[in-house]
Amino acid sequence: MSKRRVVFFVSDSTGITAETLGQSILTHFPSFEFERVLLPFVDSAAKMEDAVAKINAAAAPATRPLVFSTLVDDALRSQLLNCNGMVLDCFETFVAPLEAELGEQATHSVGRSQGAGSVKEYDRRMEAVNYTLSHDDGVTARDLEEAEIILLGVSRSGKTPTCLYMAMQFGIKAANYPLIPEDMERMKLPSALEPHMKKLFGLTIRPERLHQIRSERRPGSVYAALSNCKAEIQAAEALLRAASVPCLESTSKSIEELATTIIHEAKLQRHVY
Amino acid sequence: MSKRRVVFFVSDSTGITAETLGQSILTHFPSFEFERVLLPFVDSAAKMEDAVAKINAAAAPATRPLVFSTLVDDALRSQLLNCNGMVLDCFETFVAPLEAELGEQATHSVGRSQGAGSVKEYDRRMEAVNYTLSHDDGVTARDLEEAEIILLGVSRSGKTPTCLYMAMQFGIKAANYPLIPEDMERMKLPSALEPHMKKLFGLTIRPERLHQIRSERRPGSVYAALSNCKAEIQAAEALLRAASVPCLESTSKSIEELATTIIHEAKLQRHVY
Repeated sequence: MSKRRVVFFVSDSTGITAETLGQSILTHFPSFEFERVLLPFVDSAAKMEDAVAKINAAAAPATRPLVFSTLVDDALRSQLLNCNGMVLDCFETFVAPLEAELGEQATHSVGRSQGAGSVKEYDRRMEAVNYTLSHDDGVTARDLEEAEIILLGVSRSGKTPTCLYMAMQFGIKAANYPLIPEDMERMKLPSALEPHMKKLFGLTIRPERLHQIRSERRPGSVYAALSNCKAEIQAAEALLRAASVPCLESTSKSIEELATTIIHEAKLQRHVY
Repeated sequence: MSKRRVVFFVSDSTGITAETLGQSILTHFPSFEFERVLLPFVDSAAKMEDAVAKINAAAAPATRPLVFSTLVDDALRSQLLNCNGMVLDCFETFVAPLEAELGEQATHSVGRSQGAGSVKEYDRRMEAVNYTLSHDDGVTARDLEEAEIILLGVSRSGKTPTCLYMAMQFGIKAANYPLIPEDMERMKLPSALEPHMKKLFGLTIRPERLHQIRSERRPGSVYAALSNCKAEIQAAEALLRAASVPCLESTSKSIEELATTIIHEAKLQRHVY
């Protein structure tokens, strides 16, 4: 029988920080089933009253809700602490010791937590996303010298979401190029890539998983057939190895892990934090 | 004179959690300049020895580095605690009280923190990203009934990155449609959108900011001229108001804030956590 708990993420801003941390921690209690409720933009006493009412309504004597919070306003935090849940405050826990360490009071103003308003960061991300969109799937070989990384792999190996994640989260201009059967036959990388060998990074995947992904799109096709997936992957791996392109296996990795691993291994500099 | 500190983010996995939390907290100390070093995938004693050496090399007597860590392995954490930095452990701080609350030991195994390996989540995100890519900028009106939200706005108001963020992070199928001068002249929304009025959400932006964004792309053009930006925005806002489409101002909001605010206001259900 699975154990259940309701979990609230309460924030005066987007709630992304509370959720990211809370989710990470909760994965370490795999026998529980957590029902998640996100309460973002709780930035007034009235909204907090509402939030507390929701938490209290979910409370049962032996199973009080868990509440991950990021609140910078002391009055709102005090209000929350009176609820019938177990409050795990992600900010104050660390802010107080940091104030002592840095010899400075933290600003307790709402809405700074996502670094909003950084026009330069926004522009950098937009530029990277636009670049990545216009260099998705080998659409063009123009301006490839601007790319910071070029992902290679067979169709549906995860190139597009990984590139978009790198662009969006790290401001990295990431192009991607499909490896098509013709490349494998010639055992040569597309010639447009030759001037950019140092930027290449391969994505590979297990045949069974590729078969499963492709079958979602085109069930019963040659394209999706396991034997075809096996042959394509084997040839692509041989080609990447022959060209000394570093390679990462995407099976069972999340998009975040793929993107983070690649920038780590390729020693790329992030532009956005 | 700005004060400086080196900040390390140490993780046995991607480091995304340590960074997200650390960054949020550090924005509350705006008079400091923080030099950030990400040390991901520190999952062995040898790698931790390396990490500790890097931290110690950055340490000065009065200004020890700050170290945000997410480590599930007790031995690795003990190793880190011996460094000359101020260690702020994001996991153990909360895991211990949760173990008491839930009456269960947390798993202390590495690499679960990003929920990796959830094939269902990966598929859902891929599907949403693919949908969003193929419904970017009004490219097609096919399958619009599958969209969970349709963003509207003038060119460069932030529709594409916001849609991609919603798809990638929340698994939401988000389409977007540009409002072009012809729509404004007719004072009518594109007819393809008529069956989907309830899914529409407008993005607007301040003319000065739009002028700045468009000038990056096409400096000196009519498209980028402040007077043209003003007229387009005014007409688009009038059109959205007349059609009773809820609207959000994108100026000075981060992509995260835009996406989170929209799903909150449109009461959309997230598919991915």
